[in-house]
Formats: sequence, C-alpha cells, structure tokens
Amino acid sequence: MSTFGLIEYKDASPAVKAVYDDIMATRKTDYINNFWKAIAHDPALLKRTWEDLKALMGPGALDPLTKELLYIAVSVTNNCHYCIASHTASAFAKGMTPEMFKELQAVIGMANETNKLVTGYQVAVDARFQPPLEINKK
Amino acid sequence: MSTFGLIEYKDASPAVKAVYDDIMATRKTDYINNFWKAIAHDPALLKRTWEDLKALMGPGALDPLTKELLYIAVSVTNNCHYCIASHTASAFAKGMTPEMFKELQAVIGMANETNKLVTGYQVAVDARFQPPLEINKK
Amino acid sequence: MSTFGLIEYKDASPAVKAVYDDIMATRKTDYINNFWKAIAHDPALLKRTWEDLKALMGPGALDPLTKELLYIAVSVTNNCHYCIASHTASAFAKGMTPEMFKELQAVIGMANETNKLVTGYQVAVDARFQPPLEINKK
Amino acid sequence: MSTFGLIEYKDASPAVKAVYDDIMATRKTDYINNFWKAIAHDPALLKRTWEDLKALMGPGALDPLTKELLYIAVSVTNNCHYCIASHTASAFAKGMTPEMFKELQAVIGMANETNKLVTGYQVAVDARFQPPLEINKK
Amino acid sequence: MSTFGLIEYKDASPAVKAVYDDIMATRKTDYINNFWKAIAHDPALLKRTWEDLKALMGPGALDPLTKELLYIAVSVTNNCHYCIASHTASAFAKGMTPEMFKELQAVIGMANETNKLVTGYQVAVDARFQPPLEINKK
Amino acid sequence: MSTFGLIEYKDASPAVKAVYDDIMATRKTDYINNFWKAIAHDPALLKRTWEDLKALMGPGALDPLTKELLYIAVSVTNNCHYCIASHTASAFAKGMTPEMFKELQAVIGMANETNKLVTGYQVAVDARFQPPLEINKK
Repeated sequence: MSTFGLIEYKDASPAVKAVYDDIMATRKTDYINNFWKAIAHDPALLKRTWEDLKALMGPGALDPLTKELLYIAVSVTNNCHYCIASHTASAFAKGMTPEMFKELQAVIGMANETNKLVTGYQVAVDARFQPPLEINKK
Repeated sequence: MSTFGLIEYKDASPAVKAVYDDIMATRKTDYINNFWKAIAHDPALLKRTWEDLKALMGPGALDPLTKELLYIAVSVTNNCHYCIASHTASAFAKGMTPEMFKELQAVIGMANETNKLVTGYQVAVDARFQPPLEINKK
Repeated sequence: MSTFGLIEYKDASPAVKAVYDDIMATRKTDYINNFWKAIAHDPALLKRTWEDLKALMGPGALDPLTKELLYIAVSVTNNCHYCIASHTASAFAKGMTPEMFKELQAVIGMANETNKLVTGYQVAVDARFQPPLEINKK
Repeated sequence: MSTFGLIEYKDASPAVKAVYDDIMATRKTDYINNFWKAIAHDPALLKRTWEDLKALMGPGALDPLTKELLYIAVSVTNNCHYCIASHTASAFAKGMTPEMFKELQAVIGMANETNKLVTGYQVAVDARFQPPLEINKK
Repeated sequence: MSTFGLIEYKDASPAVKAVYDDIMATRKTDYINNFWKAIAHDPALLKRTWEDLKALMGPGALDPLTKELLYIAVSVTNNCHYCIASHTASAFAKGMTPEMFKELQAVIGMANETNKLVTGYQVAVDARFQPPLEINKK
Repeated sequence: MSTFGLIEYKDASPAVKAVYDDIMATRKTDYINNFWKAIAHDPALLKRTWEDLKALMGPGALDPLTKELLYIAVSVTNNCHYCIASHTASAFAKGMTPEMFKELQAVIGMANETNKLVTGYQVAVDARFQPPLEINKK
C-alpha cells in the first residue's frame, strides 16, 4: 500500500504500462514491485526514475552486484526498511553470497562507528586528503 | 587538531607507538593520519578500532577496493567530510578510476533519492522481499 | 501505544485535559491523536509542544499548508513514519491536491539526491553564497 | 574546489558547454555555481540533473519559491552546508522575506524536535492516518 | 556569522537584551555565544528556546552534566559541528573529565555501529521489548 | 526474524554457544535477544561486538545507566526502532525512573531542534569553542 494505493497493470494508463512492460522485460520477470506501483501515480517520475536506474545499475565501470551492495550501504545508513529488503533480495539474486552479505554488514557497521568517532573527536582533515588530488595533475 | 590535540609519535606511550608501528608497517607508509592521532587519547579504542579495521578492510569475500567504495557510500550518506576525504583518497590509492568514482557518486545520489521516494509514498514491503529469504530454505 | 501507554481523556489530569480541550477546540474535532496521548505523560512537555505548534503552524509569513509541506519534507528526510502519516493526512485536510503531493515528493527526492552529490564531490561553497547576504547591507 | 577540481566554461567539452549555456539562459545570469562545475566531470549526470531540476523547480502545482523552501528544509535536516547556502540565496532571490526565512527555520526546528519525540515515545500510527486515505475512495 | 549576521548586545532590541541579560546572569558570564546572536533575529524563537533550554538543562531527574553528555550524543549523531563544539566545551565546564569524554565517544561510536547492524540484518523487535512495559502494569 | 533467520542456542556452533553462555551469565538471564541471534551468522562479528559492548557498557568513568541513556539518545536520533525498544527496556531494568525517561526524551527532542536551528541559520563556531581546549594546556 501507499498513500494513494498501488496502481496495478490492468488499471494503468498506456504511459505507465509502457514502463511496467520495460521493467518486466529488462528484469525477465512478470512481477512489478510495490515501489513502482506507488510512484506510478506520477508517470513522469516513474519514467525518469526507471530509466535513470536502468542506465545506472547495469554494467559500467562498476559491476551490477557492487552497485547493489552500495545501494544497501546507503539504505542501511538511511534506515530505509523497504530499500534494504528489496536491494538485499536483488543482491542475493545477482550473486551475493552469505559471506559477502556478512562482510557488507560488518563494513557498514564499522563505517558508521568510525564516522562518529571522527566527528565526536572533531578531527580536522589532513592536508594530504584535501582536494585537488593527484588525479587532477595531468 | 581535535578536542584534545593530536598525539604525535614522539609523544606517544609504548602502547600507542605499537599501534602506530603496525599502521605504518601494514600500510607501507611513514604517515599516520589525524584520525589515529586523535583517538590515541583512548589507547584501548585506538587498538580495538585499528585491529578491527585491519581485519575487516583486507581481502575477504569482498575485495579491499569494494570495501572502500562502501565506506564512501556510508560516509557521504552520513555527511562525514573527514571520512569522505580520507576514504576517497584511499580508494584512488587502491585503484579506483575516475570512471568508477563517477558511477559511485551517481549510485549514492540515486539511492538517497529513491530511499526518500519510498518513504514519502509510504510504500509497504512486498511479501516476497520479507525475510526469511530462500537462502534459509536448505 | 507507546512505552507508557496512551493517556485517554477520561484518565487525564486537569492540566492534560485542558490541553486536550484546546487541541479539540482549535482543530474543530473530537479526536486527539496518539502523539499527544503519548507525551501527555509529561504534562509540561505536552503544554509547551502544543502551544508552540499552535502558534507556529497557524497563519503567518508562510501559510498553514506550506508549513505542512515543510513538515513532510523534514519527516521524510528523517524517516519518521508516524510524522509522515500524520502530516500527510493534515496536508490533505488543508487542501493539498494529489498534484501538489506528487511534486512535493519529487522535490524531496531530488533534494536528497543533490545533497549527496554535493557532498560526495566535496564541493566548496561559492563565495557569493557565503553569508552575509545582501539582505544585511541596509 | 572538488575532488576533481572544477570544470570552467573555457575548458568544457561541447556537451558540458551546452548545459552551462542552458543554465545561464534559464537563470538569466552569466554565473555557473560550483555544484555544476564539479559534477561536469560526469556529463551524463550533469545533463540529467540539470534537466530534472529545471523541469521540477519551475512553476507547477507548487510555486517555485515554495519548492526552494522545501529544498532548504531537506538540506538543513541533512546538514548539507553547500545546499543550505545555495538554496537560501536562491530563495531570497525568488522573494523569500526575512519573516518567511524565520518562520521556515522555526518550522524546521520544531519538526525535527517532534519527529524525535514521536520516535522516542515509540508512538504507533493512528488507524485513521494509515493509508489508504479517503482520496483513494472515488 | 550567520545568514543575517549576528546581533550584538548594543544593537539589540529591549526584548532581545532581556534574554541576553538572563543568559549572562544564569551562566555567570559576560559572553553570549553566536547561536543566540543568530536566532535573535527572531525574538520569539530566541525567548522560547532560551526559556525551554534553561528549564530543561538545569537540575532535575537527570543532572546537568548528564544532559550535556546526551546533547553531545545527539549532536555527534546529527553531525552538527557547532553543537558538538559548544556542548563539549559546556560539558568540560560542568565537570566532564577526559576519561568521561573518551567513554562518551566510545559509546556514541558503538551505538551508531550496532544501530546499523540491527538495521542491516533486519532484526525484528523481541516481543518482550514491545510496549507496554511492566511500568504500565500498576 | 532477520534475513538469515535467527540462530537458536540448540542450533549454534560451539563458538556461538560460548558467546551466548557469556551473555546469559553476564546478564543473569536465560534469554538471548534477537540481535545476537541474528548476527550469530557471523561468529567473529558476534564475538567482537559482544566483548566490546560488555567492556564498554559496564562501570567506568560513566555509570552503566548513563550509558544506556546515551544509547537511547543515539538510537532515537538514528530512528532505530529495535535499538530504542531494547535499550529503553534495559534502562528501565537498570533503574531509569519514569521522570528520568521523560527528561531524557525532552532533551533529545530539544537537542534535535537546536541542532537544526544552528544549521539553518548557518552559525559559525565561536573562536572560544574551537579546539584545542584548555584541557590541552597542561
């Protein structure tokens, strides 16, 4: 459910159906998850979000599984339960092993801890970490 | 600087020096960054944090570079400037290319956006995403 | 429910009843929502919070509906489900249309995205954005 | 500055220049702020972010000034200093008065407070606030 | 500085001066810190915030130093640098020892870590932790 | 439940059983809460987290109850429902009175409010608050 209810395929406008069709074709499934059915109330948002996500989460400089792990890291830090549940499921579907899941959670936990130690001790950034980095000296 | 000032090697107790030595040996550098010099006021915390980090950030089910990317994703979401600066520098040192950096930032940005769309639309978790996942059915 | 249970009107002290009466009179309703019944365990907090909120959320330099939208923007960013549910209901009651709701969510999503792009790219504030602004040059 | 340095107009590729030109034409200014010059390292991200922002922040069901106020509310809650500085400047440029600025900050502060009171008292959502709302009963 | 500049005592209205006088008398100092000089642009907010803070941060069921520690814990978790700096200074002034400071930071760090482990592992609340607690069974 | 299900005592490996035994002996209970049963999938994390927590949350420069209050302050600010429920129960078990609970929540709420007022008004840190503090001048 969502504030506006979920828009099922049979009730969708042609513009929304076109996005649903592309989601199902791209993911090789006949299932549309609730997120898409909720934001389908805003067809422009649905189309833009899906197209951006499809372009971004596919193969690139980072592989698709790494991107799912990054999504989980952000979602856990933001405490977004829906996002954690859906991207954890996606990551397992894309090959995340239980060992990877455990290391992922341990890294997320430790990063959240050291982020706060740095902050509480009011540590200034080392001069050598400040941009511009070497990469700009070409 | 930090609330208590930074503890330099020459002023450190033997327990702190031992950790500093291990940091420099492990990282093949003679540089200790400010974070360690700040939390060195609490030698037990210094030792535990370094040992956990050393164990966790090395090779495992996830490779060291992937873990740096995850650290950046958490740090950006938490808005921890020190952590972003230091782990971005580490990630470049471990082989992150500019193309990887850009995809990383785009994924972090989009994850933060869709996290909030899910939340604002009050989307319920799909039954199929709820634990236990298939992985438990052995 | 809450840690201490909810305080119903019939069980309330005179000080709490006085606040409940003012809430119902101000809102032209006979319903007191759970938030007030929970913090009624602390009558001073109840009185102060209600009076501040009544003064702040009424007409002023910003209209009441705009303030509800701002409340939703904060609550979504904080991931506070109760607050999202209650203020989304209030906003609809005060005239938010479905079109406004959709734009609101899209803006919240995008702001969360660009907040993180700025942070991850470690962008320094433009000199012209730094305070004091023109408004102080009188 | 940013991790990669800022891309100035004279050094930009044609694709980046085209976005810069559109920013300047749309905003009737010859100034490009640091955010755009930083993410210009990723021309696809630059183009998509600018086009989405241009479409979203213009007139619609919500007026442009209200959207700037929402952006500030998100940015303050996220603690994004760059975003606060730039959108506060934009809001003043679009007509925010000092009185509006003050009410805005007071609402943001209070929303952050009551968000946490709700959370700390572990208040359950009132049945009447749970979706679906009346708006779906058509 | 702040968006509107800081309001110094000599430039303040009588209403603002009255609050400044009470701050200095209560704190036995002739120094008004920047926070108050910034929100003095909104005299109603200044008066309300100071009075609430004065009432809340004094002796009560919790002692004043414990409340400063709690303030630091919230401020570190929120990443509010001003608040961390000012309340760390206050806590030292109220008797926080270096040993207490270090334990405080270690607890804040660990709480942030375990908060995220709970979230990432999607752990359901134990029935015995759910409200109502025994305290309501009277 | 958790993504991997909960590991009950009877199904646990000897390494996990040893931690469970220590938890029960330390806490003088025969109950292991879900958090430990969830992270028991990662025995190294379980052991490290329990040992760190046991060392940190016992008596020290801060008393155990104060540390539970700090844990609650972090957990509420992070919006971690499990953590709020479990540490609120622990705090009551360690002697938190209803009066203390109420002051705690009021402080957490107000700290979250003033954190955001500081941020929204873009207040610069007073020179006297900036480290190093007097404590370093020995």
